[in-house]
Amino acid sequence: MKVSIIGVGNVGKNVAYLLTVLGDYDVYLFGRYKEGFEPAKAKALDLKQMATLLNKDIQVVGVSYDTEGFEKLRHSDVIVITAGVPRGPGMSREDLLKENLKILANFCQQIVNYAPDSVVIVVSNPVDVLTYAALKLTQFPSNRVIGMAGVLDSARFKAYVKEVVGMSYSDIRALVMGTHGDFMVPVMSRSYVGSMPMEEVLNTSYIDTAIDNTREGGKKIINLMGKSAYYGPAASVFVMVDAILKDKKKVYPCSVYMDGEIAKYYELEDVCIGVPVVLGKEGVVDFEKVRLSGYERRELKRSAHSIKELIQWIKDFLD
Amino acid sequence: MKVSIIGVGNVGKNVAYLLTVLGDYDVYLFGRYKEGFEPAKAKALDLKQMATLLNKDIQVVGVSYDTEGFEKLRHSDVIVITAGVPRGPGMSREDLLKENLKILANFCQQIVNYAPDSVVIVVSNPVDVLTYAALKLTQFPSNRVIGMAGVLDSARFKAYVKEVVGMSYSDIRALVMGTHGDFMVPVMSRSYVGSMPMEEVLNTSYIDTAIDNTREGGKKIINLMGKSAYYGPAASVFVMVDAILKDKKKVYPCSVYMDGEIAKYYELEDVCIGVPVVLGKEGVVDFEKVRLSGYERRELKRSAHSIKELIQWIKDFLD
Amino acid sequence: MKVSIIGVGNVGKNVAYLLTVLGDYDVYLFGRYKEGFEPAKAKALDLKQMATLLNKDIQVVGVSYDTEGFEKLRHSDVIVITAGVPRGPGMSREDLLKENLKILANFCQQIVNYAPDSVVIVVSNPVDVLTYAALKLTQFPSNRVIGMAGVLDSARFKAYVKEVVGMSYSDIRALVMGTHGDFMVPVMSRSYVGSMPMEEVLNTSYIDTAIDNTREGGKKIINLMGKSAYYGPAASVFVMVDAILKDKKKVYPCSVYMDGEIAKYYELEDVCIGVPVVLGKEGVVDFEKVRLSGYERRELKRSAHSIKELIQWIKDFLD
Amino acid sequence: MKVSIIGVGNVGKNVAYLLTVLGDYDVYLFGRYKEGFEPAKAKALDLKQMATLLNKDIQVVGVSYDTEGFEKLRHSDVIVITAGVPRGPGMSREDLLKENLKILANFCQQIVNYAPDSVVIVVSNPVDVLTYAALKLTQFPSNRVIGMAGVLDSARFKAYVKEVVGMSYSDIRALVMGTHGDFMVPVMSRSYVGSMPMEEVLNTSYIDTAIDNTREGGKKIINLMGKSAYYGPAASVFVMVDAILKDKKKVYPCSVYMDGEIAKYYELEDVCIGVPVVLGKEGVVDFEKVRLSGYERRELKRSAHSIKELIQWIKDFLD
Repeated sequence: MKVSIIGVGNVGKNVAYLLTVLGDYDVYLFGRYKEGFEPAKAKALDLKQMATLLNKDIQVVGVSYDTEGFEKLRHSDVIVITAGVPRGPGMSREDLLKENLKILANFCQQIVNYAPDSVVIVVSNPVDVLTYAALKLTQFPSNRVIGMAGVLDSARFKAYVKEVVGMSYSDIRALVMGTHGDFMVPVMSRSYVGSMPMEEVLNTSYIDTAIDNTREGGKKIINLMGKSAYYGPAASVFVMVDAILKDKKKVYPCSVYMDGEIAKYYELEDVCIGVPVVLGKEGVVDFEKVRLSGYERRELKRSAHSIKELIQWIKDFLD
Repeated sequence: MKVSIIGVGNVGKNVAYLLTVLGDYDVYLFGRYKEGFEPAKAKALDLKQMATLLNKDIQVVGVSYDTEGFEKLRHSDVIVITAGVPRGPGMSREDLLKENLKILANFCQQIVNYAPDSVVIVVSNPVDVLTYAALKLTQFPSNRVIGMAGVLDSARFKAYVKEVVGMSYSDIRALVMGTHGDFMVPVMSRSYVGSMPMEEVLNTSYIDTAIDNTREGGKKIINLMGKSAYYGPAASVFVMVDAILKDKKKVYPCSVYMDGEIAKYYELEDVCIGVPVVLGKEGVVDFEKVRLSGYERRELKRSAHSIKELIQWIKDFLD
Repeated sequence: MKVSIIGVGNVGKNVAYLLTVLGDYDVYLFGRYKEGFEPAKAKALDLKQMATLLNKDIQVVGVSYDTEGFEKLRHSDVIVITAGVPRGPGMSREDLLKENLKILANFCQQIVNYAPDSVVIVVSNPVDVLTYAALKLTQFPSNRVIGMAGVLDSARFKAYVKEVVGMSYSDIRALVMGTHGDFMVPVMSRSYVGSMPMEEVLNTSYIDTAIDNTREGGKKIINLMGKSAYYGPAASVFVMVDAILKDKKKVYPCSVYMDGEIAKYYELEDVCIGVPVVLGKEGVVDFEKVRLSGYERRELKRSAHSIKELIQWIKDFLD
Repeated sequence: MKVSIIGVGNVGKNVAYLLTVLGDYDVYLFGRYKEGFEPAKAKALDLKQMATLLNKDIQVVGVSYDTEGFEKLRHSDVIVITAGVPRGPGMSREDLLKENLKILANFCQQIVNYAPDSVVIVVSNPVDVLTYAALKLTQFPSNRVIGMAGVLDSARFKAYVKEVVGMSYSDIRALVMGTHGDFMVPVMSRSYVGSMPMEEVLNTSYIDTAIDNTREGGKKIINLMGKSAYYGPAASVFVMVDAILKDKKKVYPCSVYMDGEIAKYYELEDVCIGVPVVLGKEGVVDFEKVRLSGYERRELKRSAHSIKELIQWIKDFLD
């Protein structure tokens, strides 16, 4: 099995890192050729030397796509798109979008050409919007284009919950739906600590604090080091890739396109947004019908609404 | 058990990364506080969110030592020193030394104060020389101050050998002794592929190429990406730490101080240099008596000689 | 760290097996010396040869306690008691009890002598009753004497649920409380599939079938092979030992003594019975306050009542 | 990927056990239906409940072949034949052979029918002879019929070496060639401890003792428990299966048919015997050209000679 990662920035290279350390798949890293440097090749070489020490007999291959093109995408089972301009401290999500959409269009064309049966995971921000764009650009069935967002938000939430309850991470389950960032929708009635609904274990004020911290989780790290987080995001992608390639049927909140039964159930339309889905060999193989409260349902709609303009902007752009 | 890492540059943070993903130990990251940023805290937070996703119930703690000091070194079983100015493309090992020695002296003082029973692994370059310095500065017994070099050189060698023999990394064993870099001493008669001595499997010209590539391995990555490798070095540190904390009694070539029986066997004195040793709970618990050929013995002496001036410089400096 | 297992029957040897394959602890196996055979030594030797192949550098030691005594229990962190006459097809729990109690009394005495700080896990049947006996016999604090029952029942339940929902085991959570066997108390309102309460995902008739299958789970295997299951029970013990030794703070339903706060919460007294507890270094480090329905609460009392006579019998016996 | 195991005796069931715990493959267990019992189904059910606890989302399926036939062998990538009468204390290898050959003929026919592209691993004793028989019976290419023997002998040897050198199992490498048992041929010049040839590290008398212990390794366990070892044998099969399914290109001594280049190199003909080979996706993908000493070469011939009559007996039987 083969995973290709487009973009060797901090997230892309760390996805490759985790796949080298924990996976059993061949890893192809696609990066730019710039100013004489070939970072994808450098990283692949470095990762290979790491693989040596950990006895991981996988292929790690670096491709400078400016000079070599994308032919080595062939036979990829999963393709992770991480490339794009990262969000700096003061940058708006709209600014990001314009830059990244052009880049994305090229990648999608290449994916369609070389790996038309792959599952595509979009990581670049604004993720829900770019997942939508990738779906339109590839015209893949909607189960094969998935945005990474809720996994990370849920993980951040879990990390804060662990601080007070102390239990193993494997006993904490947090559901965060909606768009990534300010409009995320934590669903407390479907979050658990051990055998217990989270709301029975934690008091409201602590839950509120944890929600705020999660919402600000990305910014907090930017403030501490002047750039975006990458270990958490990389691990989020890793667990998704692993669930897909091993056909694990794991439930994760992911940004997926609302159509058919899922659109009907959540009363949302023509948007990509985070809902809990089951990941397996074909990408999204099922979704959960979460009984949302009236409040949660409204929040989810508000969340979808928050990216409406960007979605429209993309539609206009793609026409 | 607890591992502390001083320095959150590319190597330091990736050691922490591997320990988070693969270890069972608490990880403390010590970094600078600069220009309002606290990279150690940022990385620790990001790693913690990764740990959440991988269900690793360990502590990952960031310490900004400029403001908090080094008290949190307490109870460390192993301390990894990665801090220092990295070697840029044109920088000599001597330039590196001066910068790094001052920094090292402070760390050693703190280690003596707070973790006098720890095992210290030195990664900063020039590694053999700084290992020597760390030994003198801490006055620890020589089994507890170990330089990381040969593990990485051996791994690079293995990676090149694998390209032609195709076998699993776990079936390839390469011994590289001596100082790190230009004067490394590959010992082919003690390197194996499967059940076979390497020299019976590979022809001389391929071995020569692999040796050259290994010697230039670090530079090749610098040339490709404009900075030093870090995944391979981090994995090298990881396997050493893991062997020590789990008392595995694994054989790795490490830079260790030549005294007592080992000095006598290798006819070297008052220098730190790479030889195959056994790593266990107390650090270096034994060494291998490799029967070197006349040529290899001369190369090892030449290797030791190559750092003689720097060692002398350190002695003068420390007086 | 060190785990001792008393009894090398099918469960005992398979606990040792899993600890050898998956653990990082030294394993001591205590068995009988009978008719010239030393099964504990045979198994330990065989396991050691397995460890060789899996590169597990742990100690596996076999002790024939009839000839060597129990001194090698010393320094055990956890002791697993599996010894006892196994339950044959027609044997009542009472018959089992009489046989096993005498054996247990000896083991407890030895544990008190040689490993007074260990955590004891009781596996022999009838488990809730023998856990009670072990607590009285050792006079250990109640957090350090734990019966294995609910973990296995929950696992069996999960296996049946997986058959219809298809999701990863890691996404299925089932809570089974009460005594082991006919009077177990499944708590559906605290059982989950993915983010969803189980009752929202499965229809009642399927849940009923799964409950019946779980209750009969042990008997079904006895019918198929003429003896009791051992892989599931061994894995149940393994996850408990692992949670304790790695101080994981995992939530598992275990048979524990009802006193103090937990007795008050569940309105039960002077009995060992299955409730969800948190396992860590000191054994039971916390318990969950599950809001039981009126029906569940009555079932739990009925469950406790079902072993009342046996408990009384033990009290009389120990006086 | 799918592994089928024929026979649910102690070795068969423990191969299934290890594949459940450590593998990522679906496991099918084929056993008899006898006296109303269905041990294959019982074991599969028990293993599945274990898988639940370890979150291994694989299929474990039990098949009673007397009633269901062998159709479920279909799509097996590897088939392990463990069935047969086990060797009791006084039983000769010849007695074993007659019993087991008839059973084997049936299995081979079924394998040819349902899984003509599988790799077959023979474990039943006398293994070299039955591997030969399986090759003839299936008429598979010789790279796809492999006997398990040398892996176990090497492991036993390593276990004894570890007792004196203390190093990690991963640093000990022992090569045992020839037929399984009394005529095994330890090759000391190709056995290593760390970077060192074993003969430089251990004195001759210890090596002799270790060889004797290895040769008697199976009998020692029989004497201690009245039946044959099964953990070591099961782990030996596991590492072979894993190397094949993950295409690891690992070197293991295995019993393989001597023809073509390998027959020529070792000057042996028309026999299955243990030599170091490379295991990958197609079974045996390469072999090592070990430079044997005159003594070792003679021993290897003697070893081959020791099964000559049995091989002839098989040839006559199959005509």
